Amino acid sequence: MDKLYESVKSRGHVCIGLDTAVDYLPSSAAFATAGASATPEAAKAIFDFNKAIIDASLDIAACFKVQIAYYEELGLAGLECYAKTLEYIRKKGALVIADIKRGDIADTAERYARAHFDGDFEADFVTLTPFLGMDSIEPWLEWADKKGKGAFVLMRTSNKGRKDFQLQKIAVRKTQREPAGPQEPGDSIVLSDVIGEKLSGLAAAKCGVHGYGAFGAVVGIDTSSAEERNEAIAIRARYPNLFFLIPGYGAQGGAADDVALLLNKGNGGVVNASRSILKAWQSGASGGADNDFAAKAAREAAINMRDAIRKAIS
Amino acid sequence: MDKLYESVKSRGHVCIGLDTAVDYLPSSAAFATAGASATPEAAKAIFDFNKAIIDASLDIAACFKVQIAYYEELGLAGLECYAKTLEYIRKKGALVIADIKRGDIADTAERYARAHFDGDFEADFVTLTPFLGMDSIEPWLEWADKKGKGAFVLMRTSNKGRKDFQLQKIAVRKTQREPAGPQEPGDSIVLSDVIGEKLSGLAAAKCGVHGYGAFGAVVGIDTSSAEERNEAIAIRARYPNLFFLIPGYGAQGGAADDVALLLNKGNGGVVNASRSILKAWQSGASGGADNDFAAKAAREAAINMRDAIRKAIS
Repeated sequence: MDKLYESVKSRGHVCIGLDTAVDYLPSSAAFATAGASATPEAAKAIFDFNKAIIDASLDIAACFKVQIAYYEELGLAGLECYAKTLEYIRKKGALVIADIKRGDIADTAERYARAHFDGDFEADFVTLTPFLGMDSIEPWLEWADKKGKGAFVLMRTSNKGRKDFQLQKIAVRKTQREPAGPQEPGDSIVLSDVIGEKLSGLAAAKCGVHGYGAFGAVVGIDTSSAEERNEAIAIRARYPNLFFLIPGYGAQGGAADDVALLLNKGNGGVVNASRSILKAWQSGASGGADNDFAAKAAREAAINMRDAIRKAIS
Repeated sequence: MDKLYESVKSRGHVCIGLDTAVDYLPSSAAFATAGASATPEAAKAIFDFNKAIIDASLDIAACFKVQIAYYEELGLAGLECYAKTLEYIRKKGALVIADIKRGDIADTAERYARAHFDGDFEADFVTLTPFLGMDSIEPWLEWADKKGKGAFVLMRTSNKGRKDFQLQKIAVRKTQREPAGPQEPGDSIVLSDVIGEKLSGLAAAKCGVHGYGAFGAVVGIDTSSAEERNEAIAIRARYPNLFFLIPGYGAQGGAADDVALLLNKGNGGVVNASRSILKAWQSGASGGADNDFAAKAAREAAINMRDAIRKAIS
């Protein structure tokens, strides 16, 4: 997490999300016929596009995030493209987050860890789902330690469905937290806080030189209400040792002022944008767009985003 | 889910888990040197082993479950083996559950659904993680409808870490459930129940001819206490329209009497066993074991398990 901190310091907060679908490509027309979007040719076109975006934004992206679902969708050819994309990013010396949201226990978690911290799919960071319990997170820790890796654990997202489970109020007896006093109305926390406390405990046990644990959290922001904005401020204050992966900028509605609430003294978080960067070329294209054109437009969109966030925190 | 119901009726409750690691194979010695366990040769050996197990148990297994982590671990070659294993099972007319525990939202969930209900990785059922909310489950429903597929959503597992989040008590005001009366101590449900109620609602909206919705639940059993056994009985009674995928038989400690508590009039669930079946050959092997020997031992272990469960529910 120290490497990511330093990358943010020098390059800004933008995490470029390579959630690349065939129809985002300037060459998409070639794959418009039924079935053609899941061919090895489509996967190769996606890799070429990714490469152009990566090359054009190495100096301005804190890191890249690759959403594996977009590649699993294309089957084996897609996963080969996924592996090549990770390899290319790492070869260029940049950091890559594998957005895999895996979550399984014991021996199975250990195998997932080996899959994504080693071998064909080796990444610097992964995203994890904590639902099964901390025994689904711990096997990753050993691997992270051994290989200098990190993770972002889902804690509080900004999708509508977050209310279904993450934001369920957990009944907490006051006696558990403060020994004295009876339970009072409102004396509860939500499930996300239970996760945050556990992650915070892990980070406290082992911290990098910049004050963050190797396992941070995925924290989304819903900009629809003042209450949510206040909650963002509270979350940032509550977990000073958790580095945040903040999704939802751009296409998903977040703005620089909102994500600034989740940053910590100008660092402590990366902000992901995918579609707004990958598809930036579409608004300027007049017909003859190619990957170079798309890469330039992506670079420009990422710079605008980086500067907007810098301005919001200054 | 009707197909699975009928398969259980004729073949029994055993779901054979192909969580196949290289060191489970009679030929494992060939891959004992460092690095050799993640080669295309190792992946091919796993496929050959899987094929032998599948061929030997088609008539006695309700279905097969393939845990993708064991294949992701081996990288691209492993996933090719995964795809071939699913294809082989389906070609033989058997049902296969892809144990992928995916969970993501919106467009991403849709892509995962296409990945695992179509193309190289097509399965009959998948396992899903509900953490992000029902908007991470719904995109799978449309695909399931369209292609006649099903899913098992993680609801209550038997690992130690289930207490971290799944079994957190949710503060529920009595007024929400029954309009009259003040809140009382103990008037709460756990997170797993919130999930169960949502799944039960989905199943009620659309049910198969045997009374089960296309989306069932993963429900593990902890046999360590009478309280847990009573909870299993309560869960089965509470969700009559959810088909259960019950892990943890054999190597993980479950016994026929315990899983019987989670079955519904002799059906309504499949019971997974992996290591106790795949590694059954080791207890009888004298040195010259091969895949045929392992497949016979697996068949015998599966028959014993099937008969033990049948006896427990009779």
